[in-house]
Amino acid sequence: MRRVAIAGIGFTKIREHWSKSLKDLFAEAALKAFEDAGTDEVDALYVSNMGAASLQGQLHLGAMMADTIGKRGIAALRVEAASASGGAAFREGVKAVASGYSDCVLVGGVEKMSDGIPAEVSATLAMSEDQEYTSYTGVTKIGLNALIHRHYMERFGVKAEDIAMFAVRSHENAVGSPHAQYPFKVSIDRVMASPMEADPIHTLECAGVGDGSAAVLLRPADEAKDDIIVAATSLATGAYYLSDRSDILTFEAVRQAATQAFKSADVSHSEIDVLEVHDDTTITGVISLEDLGFVEKGMGAEYVSRGDTTRGGETPTNTFGGLKARGNPVGATGLYQICEVALQLRQEAGPCQVEDANVGLAQSLGGLGSTCAVTILRRG
Amino acid sequence: MRRVAIAGIGFTKIREHWSKSLKDLFAEAALKAFEDAGTDEVDALYVSNMGAASLQGQLHLGAMMADTIGKRGIAALRVEAASASGGAAFREGVKAVASGYSDCVLVGGVEKMSDGIPAEVSATLAMSEDQEYTSYTGVTKIGLNALIHRHYMERFGVKAEDIAMFAVRSHENAVGSPHAQYPFKVSIDRVMASPMEADPIHTLECAGVGDGSAAVLLRPADEAKDDIIVAATSLATGAYYLSDRSDILTFEAVRQAATQAFKSADVSHSEIDVLEVHDDTTITGVISLEDLGFVEKGMGAEYVSRGDTTRGGETPTNTFGGLKARGNPVGATGLYQICEVALQLRQEAGPCQVEDANVGLAQSLGGLGSTCAVTILRRG
Repeated sequence: MRRVAIAGIGFTKIREHWSKSLKDLFAEAALKAFEDAGTDEVDALYVSNMGAASLQGQLHLGAMMADTIGKRGIAALRVEAASASGGAAFREGVKAVASGYSDCVLVGGVEKMSDGIPAEVSATLAMSEDQEYTSYTGVTKIGLNALIHRHYMERFGVKAEDIAMFAVRSHENAVGSPHAQYPFKVSIDRVMASPMEADPIHTLECAGVGDGSAAVLLRPADEAKDDIIVAATSLATGAYYLSDRSDILTFEAVRQAATQAFKSADVSHSEIDVLEVHDDTTITGVISLEDLGFVEKGMGAEYVSRGDTTRGGETPTNTFGGLKARGNPVGATGLYQICEVALQLRQEAGPCQVEDANVGLAQSLGGLGSTCAVTILRRG
Repeated sequence: MRRVAIAGIGFTKIREHWSKSLKDLFAEAALKAFEDAGTDEVDALYVSNMGAASLQGQLHLGAMMADTIGKRGIAALRVEAASASGGAAFREGVKAVASGYSDCVLVGGVEKMSDGIPAEVSATLAMSEDQEYTSYTGVTKIGLNALIHRHYMERFGVKAEDIAMFAVRSHENAVGSPHAQYPFKVSIDRVMASPMEADPIHTLECAGVGDGSAAVLLRPADEAKDDIIVAATSLATGAYYLSDRSDILTFEAVRQAATQAFKSADVSHSEIDVLEVHDDTTITGVISLEDLGFVEKGMGAEYVSRGDTTRGGETPTNTFGGLKARGNPVGATGLYQICEVALQLRQEAGPCQVEDANVGLAQSLGGLGSTCAVTILRRG
C-alpha cells in the first residue's frame, strides 16, 4: 500500500447559506482544495452527503458535482453513512489512492440543511434510525440521545451541568474560528437556561442546523512535500438498535474503530495532540471521549468539566468548536473535522492553534453511534 | 492487485413485495449469497440503494443491513449513483478485495419502489437530474428520454417500431426466468398500442416499478475454485445536463467506461458472450449497444430488430429480460445484472442459458447516461 497524503483542503464558512445551492457550496470547497494543493488534477471523486434527497430532492451528486467542478469523465459516486458520511467517504478515497487505483482523489462533503423547515430537518436526521421500528413513532434523534443522557446521569451520579460543560468548552474553542457558525462563548448558566429540546437535553447542548461543504485532495505521499500523512482510517458498525445493546452507554462501533485505527497508525492515546469528536449532543461527545479510550467509562463529563479537553489541556478537543459551535452540516461534518486536524498539524489554525500539534484524530458518528469512522493524521 | 472472484450470488424475485421490508429483501439476497458461497465470512459491506430516503424515509442502510444479517461490527456504508448504484458499489467492493483492504466483501443492492405512489416513484427517479434546472420543471426521466428518442428517430430515419423491438426482445428472453417480474412475451403490436408515457415512448417501452435485492460475495480468486473472475470494472461520468452535450445521442460516460473496461480486461467485443445493458427505456438500450461499441452509431435499432441481440444472435443481450422484463428495482439493478452474468458463466441459467458463455459484460447507467459502470466477468 502507498502512503497517502492530504495535498489540499478547502471548506466554506458554515452558515445558513440562503443564496447558495448545493453546487455553489461544493464548488467553493473543491476549488479551494485545488488552489491549496496547487493542482486541480483529480481522477476520482467521492461525494459525501446525508440529506439531499429529502431536503433538496436531489440524488446522483457524484456525476453532478464532477460536472460542476469541470471534471466530466472522472469516476464519481456518493457515499452515505448518515452523519458519518464524511469520515466513511474519506476512507474510501484513502483506499483508492493507497491501493494505486487512483492517483489523485477528491473527497468532498456537502449539506444544505437550511432548505428544510425544522420538522423536515428533524425527520431527515431521524432517517438514520429504523423507520419501521423507531423513527415512525415520531421520536427524534435528540429524543433518543436523551434516553442515553438520562441513563448516564443516573448510573454514574453525574450532574446535568457536568455533561452540559461539553457545549461550553466547544464554544470557548470556536472563538476566533473564521469558519465556525457560532464563534462565541456561552456560559453554563445560559446552556442550562435554554429550553428543553428533549429532557434532559437543552437546546444549547445540541448541534444546530447549518449549510456547508468541505473537501480534501488526496495523493500518494511520496510525491508531496510538507504534507499531512494519513496514518490510519477505520470504519466499524455496532448494534443498530438502542434496545439491542448490551450497554446503552457504550458505542461498540467507536471502541472497535478506535482500536483498529490506533493499532494501524501505531500511535498511543498520549500522542494525540488534537482530537475532533462527534458532539451532535453533549452526551454523545462525552461518551465518545470514553469509548475512544481517552478517559475511563463514567468519567468523561468530569474530564471535560475540569478542563482536560481545553486547548491547553491533556487532550485538546474540538479545537474549532466541534459540531456544536463550528456547526454540523451533517454529510460534510466528517470532512470539516479532517480539514481542521490538517490545519492544526500544519500549524495554520490561527487563534485556534494547539501548540506543537503533530498527530490528530477525527471521529465521525452515524446514527446513535452505530457507525463510527476514525481518521488519524500526522505531519509528514 | 489480487484477482477477485465472485464466490457467491443471491437475489430475490422481483415483484411488488407488499409484505416484505427493505430488511427482509436484503437479508434474503445476502443469506442466499452466503449459502451459495458456502461461507458467511465477510469483513465489509457495501449497500447500494437509490430511493429509500424518499420512498421509505430510510438512510444509514450500511449499519442497518450489517446488523440485519448478523454482522455487527464490520465496516459498512451505502453507495449511491442513481440507477448506477449497483454497478458503482460492486466496483468499490472489488477494489477493497483487490487491494487487500478486505478479504471477503458483500455487495448488496436493495430497492423497494412499491411503497411509493406513482408520483413519488417518478419524483425519486427524477432526483438523478438537477432539481434546480431540470426536475423542478416537472419533467420526468422518461420525458427526458423522449427527447433523445425522437431525435434519434429523426436523425437516423429510424422507425418507432425498430426501437420498440428492444422491449419485445427483452420479454422474449425473460420467458422461463424464475426471478423476472414479467416473464412473458409481448408483441410489437401490443407495445405500439400501449399508452404514450412520454411521446414517442410507449408505456411498454419503459421498465416498470419493482422491489428486489441482489447480493454478491467477493473474495480473492486464488482461494476459490470454479469461480467467476472479475476481469474488469470501470466507472465514468459524462456531461450531467442533456443541454450541455456535444451530441445528445451519445453517452460519453458509456464510451469511456467501456474503453477502460475492455482495455483492462484485455478482451474484444467479439469475445463477449453475454451482455446486460441498462434498458430503462428502449432508446437507452439501443444507444447503450452503440456506445459500448457493439454496433455503429445509428444502427442499434436495426441490430436489435433483425435479431442480433437474441439468445442465439451475435451478442446475446439482457438474457433474463433486462430492466424491462426482469424488472428494475433501481438501486439493486446493477447487481441483478452481475448475478445474471455470473449465472450464465456458470452455465446455470436454465432456460435462459446462452451456449458456452465464457465472458460477460454488465452495464449500469445513472441519470441520462451521465454515470456509467461497466463490469466484465469471465469463467475462472
